[in-house]
Amino acid sequence: MARYTNMDFLRFLLFEVHPIKDLFQYERFAHLDEEQAWMMIESAKLLADQEMAPFFKDMDENPVKYDGKGNVLTHPCLKRIITESASQGWIGASANFENGGMQLPEMIFSTAHHIFQAANNGVEGYLGLSAGAAGLITSFGNIEQIGTYVPKIFAGEWQGTMALTEPQAGSSLSDITTSAKPLNAEKYLINGQKIFISGGQHEACSNFIHLTLARIEGAPLGVKGISLFIVPKFRVKENGDLEYNDVYCAGDFQKMGQKGYATTHLSFGDNNDCIGYLVGEPHKGLSYMFQMMNGARISVGMCAASVAMAAYQASLQYCLERPQGRIAGEKDPSKEPTLIINHADVQRMLFTQKAIAEGALSLGLECNKLYDLTHVVTGDEKHNYWLLLEILTPIVKTYSSEHGSRSAALAIQTLGGYGFTTDFPVQQHYRDLKIMSLYEGTTGIQAIDLLGRKVTMEKGNALHILAATIQKTITEASQDPVLKELAEQLANDMKTIEKVLTKLYGYSVQGKIEQYLSDATVFLEMMSFIVIGWQWLKMSISARKKLSAPGLSVSEKQFYQGKIQTSEFYCKYELPHVSAFANTLLNEKELTNIKDFPIFD
Amino acid sequence: MARYTNMDFLRFLLFEVHPIKDLFQYERFAHLDEEQAWMMIESAKLLADQEMAPFFKDMDENPVKYDGKGNVLTHPCLKRIITESASQGWIGASANFENGGMQLPEMIFSTAHHIFQAANNGVEGYLGLSAGAAGLITSFGNIEQIGTYVPKIFAGEWQGTMALTEPQAGSSLSDITTSAKPLNAEKYLINGQKIFISGGQHEACSNFIHLTLARIEGAPLGVKGISLFIVPKFRVKENGDLEYNDVYCAGDFQKMGQKGYATTHLSFGDNNDCIGYLVGEPHKGLSYMFQMMNGARISVGMCAASVAMAAYQASLQYCLERPQGRIAGEKDPSKEPTLIINHADVQRMLFTQKAIAEGALSLGLECNKLYDLTHVVTGDEKHNYWLLLEILTPIVKTYSSEHGSRSAALAIQTLGGYGFTTDFPVQQHYRDLKIMSLYEGTTGIQAIDLLGRKVTMEKGNALHILAATIQKTITEASQDPVLKELAEQLANDMKTIEKVLTKLYGYSVQGKIEQYLSDATVFLEMMSFIVIGWQWLKMSISARKKLSAPGLSVSEKQFYQGKIQTSEFYCKYELPHVSAFANTLLNEKELTNIKDFPIFD
Repeated sequence: MARYTNMDFLRFLLFEVHPIKDLFQYERFAHLDEEQAWMMIESAKLLADQEMAPFFKDMDENPVKYDGKGNVLTHPCLKRIITESASQGWIGASANFENGGMQLPEMIFSTAHHIFQAANNGVEGYLGLSAGAAGLITSFGNIEQIGTYVPKIFAGEWQGTMALTEPQAGSSLSDITTSAKPLNAEKYLINGQKIFISGGQHEACSNFIHLTLARIEGAPLGVKGISLFIVPKFRVKENGDLEYNDVYCAGDFQKMGQKGYATTHLSFGDNNDCIGYLVGEPHKGLSYMFQMMNGARISVGMCAASVAMAAYQASLQYCLERPQGRIAGEKDPSKEPTLIINHADVQRMLFTQKAIAEGALSLGLECNKLYDLTHVVTGDEKHNYWLLLEILTPIVKTYSSEHGSRSAALAIQTLGGYGFTTDFPVQQHYRDLKIMSLYEGTTGIQAIDLLGRKVTMEKGNALHILAATIQKTITEASQDPVLKELAEQLANDMKTIEKVLTKLYGYSVQGKIEQYLSDATVFLEMMSFIVIGWQWLKMSISARKKLSAPGLSVSEKQFYQGKIQTSEFYCKYELPHVSAFANTLLNEKELTNIKDFPIFD
Repeated sequence: MARYTNMDFLRFLLFEVHPIKDLFQYERFAHLDEEQAWMMIESAKLLADQEMAPFFKDMDENPVKYDGKGNVLTHPCLKRIITESASQGWIGASANFENGGMQLPEMIFSTAHHIFQAANNGVEGYLGLSAGAAGLITSFGNIEQIGTYVPKIFAGEWQGTMALTEPQAGSSLSDITTSAKPLNAEKYLINGQKIFISGGQHEACSNFIHLTLARIEGAPLGVKGISLFIVPKFRVKENGDLEYNDVYCAGDFQKMGQKGYATTHLSFGDNNDCIGYLVGEPHKGLSYMFQMMNGARISVGMCAASVAMAAYQASLQYCLERPQGRIAGEKDPSKEPTLIINHADVQRMLFTQKAIAEGALSLGLECNKLYDLTHVVTGDEKHNYWLLLEILTPIVKTYSSEHGSRSAALAIQTLGGYGFTTDFPVQQHYRDLKIMSLYEGTTGIQAIDLLGRKVTMEKGNALHILAATIQKTITEASQDPVLKELAEQLANDMKTIEKVLTKLYGYSVQGKIEQYLSDATVFLEMMSFIVIGWQWLKMSISARKKLSAPGLSVSEKQFYQGKIQTSEFYCKYELPHVSAFANTLLNEKELTNIKDFPIFD
């Protein structure tokens, strides 16, 4: 069995870096303790070992196929995976008791899903989408809707999806044209095309509940005229029977990665008989959808980190087994070849992967904990956690995706030519990962979200709270001679953010919105490096605490020492690029608002 | 027909930035002029349009297959491609007249091959390998060997290959074990296994001439005991008939990219009847092979740049046609969506791709010109060109590969979700590109070559010549108010190299060879950014000259203006990272010479 994640590391995150026990003091989670939490994580690992990891390669080599007649044929393993996962609670477990859930913290739910993503990222999406869709119905649907759809979704019988994207609109949701014609206050006739619908209509589930954005006839233009509908493939008649609801799967996109994961084109209402059930109030669909979208963004970030982690584990295993060459300076060819992990450049590539994958996962759990906290506290405290989560969402999504790809490229590199062959999984990780910077808003969209909305929201309050939170970690670490350097570096980098924002606000004040946002992606890159540095500092503080306690085994000592060494690595090799990004951002030359396109020829 | 390269840009490089006419003054190339050169390039374009580009996607979707019986089945188009290319001279044209060539400069030959690589990188390798193998035989083989093999290879009937890598040795050539037992002074019995043999045995050619490294019985250990052999699949009997030479193709590697390009496992002498013909003197094989290897490294650099160029062209075309969203600050949803090229972030991604692909191609042609010059001048001049080529080789190979991948990732990103689907070519470019950082010495190997050999060779003479050459360009540009900023930035960066090397030499002087080489890859990254900056400065100088001349058309003005704007972009967005790399290199903390591997857990 290939090792695709590191259980010790998950334990470290859950019990030391982001102590989950902080949650158990609240009523919502009072039925849980650490031991139970860990048992659930271990059962998720067993499930992934037995049902998911074995099919990772095979699902890639036998991709999802469209039969030309409305059906998407998936790998035979999928039905069992969905059913088993559902029966263990990995679709519905974070829901309230009264909705059939186990009231699990997202921290536990996401950690289990991390394991699934690392084992086989092509199957986890089916589960995650169903969980998100059910969550959306629960939050904004009426009692009847909840009762009709949620239990079936939780059971893994029906698949939930999110249906936003249209061919002509892409990321620009204000331009969606799928129409909804009222039949009565709740029922509408839906007509339109949706593309890139993950988990669309396939043979492993018997019904599909598409959470669909559409425009009610006469609605205002733009995003303020978008409503949310439940559009099932088969609608439930009053007697409980199902009848076809005119949602036709018109095709499946073939892709460079995630080949086991259906990416469908859906056509609603070709025969004018597609009924959508309005969720909540008209025209408020986009704000509802953003509950699912925000969750999906964090989940994509986690998934990217998880795939990078799996690639790192495969890379590490190879480096520990493969002898080749001799260390620098050793010229004697009669000496036995050394393991490649002894080469400094290989260690550099391993540390880089570890810094990215573990740093991104730590940030993912930070976000999940914030999410959980917003559900148990109230007032200002709740609002502040929410603000922090809002500003971290584009960062966890983008850093994990973009640098996850870089990390997987290094995994290939450590295997040399073998890494490019299908004999090893790292090339699949690399291919699968590429979608993550596109899912649920591309990197460019995330960057505009960060600089255009999150940094400025409530007069910069989200950013202030983030800065204060990071400062708290820096202050704690500054006392420690070993962590001082990283702490000081981060403190400097926090000043760099201020300097950069002062410059950028200047454009904004002058009404130069285009210029203010031009380099939003560079700003996001810069912020990400700092936020991941903060996570490494947090991990190092936890590691230092453990190291100062008596009675550690040799392997435990090495584990904690590894955290500190990776944070030193991060400080030497990654953080220096913060200044480079800042240099770009402080440079006033406006180069990317050109109207004269032949320049690009 | 998809546009996969930019002929105006090639003309600019050949006639203005790296004037090819400098070569025509020498006797070797005196039979040529610019007009003839360009006619050849245009005929190569026609060939690529008609015979190569149409099969780019199909070769990916119908990969090379091994039949289990020693045969590699390739795409049916391949035979015709090889025959047509051969008949137009694109295997043998750079050889001397007396060897059946057209005595073409490598600049022309490589520009034609760039077009092939951009059109269909999976087929160009077959041609390039044959050219390299024939060149190697011509340089070091005897008259009989040249007469027996070279004409058949030039005709495209026989395929040349380079057979270095063995399963147990990988990049460590000193550990190869393929053996050669002398039958007489020229003939040896060969026995061993070679893997990753590109263009190995396939059905599009009738014979295979493997340039094979092996160890003559009793030879010294290490690289000083390696000899070079011609090992054909079918040997030529005295009467001219062919007989099987016991070279069995034992398999073909399946890969994530370049799926149309055979990557074989060859078994020599399973029946003890494999004859190899010694090339040159015993034990000098590695130095001979490095003629082909150095050529191949430049060619891989060119190929990576070419694929990045093709991805850029596809990306640009999409951005010019796809309407989506509105520019920042435009809130009115009733306004028509804008072309995505109007978004600043899309322009940033296009400029980044242009900076990488064009910068890398320019450096590739710089190297080819140096190669040509070493063949026409003598004495110190020749030696200096050779030194410059030696130090630039690891840079062109690595920058193009590593940043070519980054560039293709951005090409995907500009297409959004579509970029991940097989409906568009950019995902294939991205997959194909990943092999480039592994071919002919991984990035880590190139880095050690640069810092461990090239920087120190002849007491730093290669580096001094490079620095003086770059300084000449800087001095020329400093006079120009528009180019001053980039010139000054590069001048500063040149000082940074000095500072970094002073620090690194310190380790070397103390005998700390491991530490000296630990961050060789970071050093290579730093150098690459500067060298590409130098190419952009050269291109900008040429563009400024053209812009000051009268009579330019609007599109010509835009073309040259585009060069200057891309160089400004490079200065703002890319060059700042030189300081970041330098920071890492100047940091004395030794983090990647760890002996305690559980740290990585």
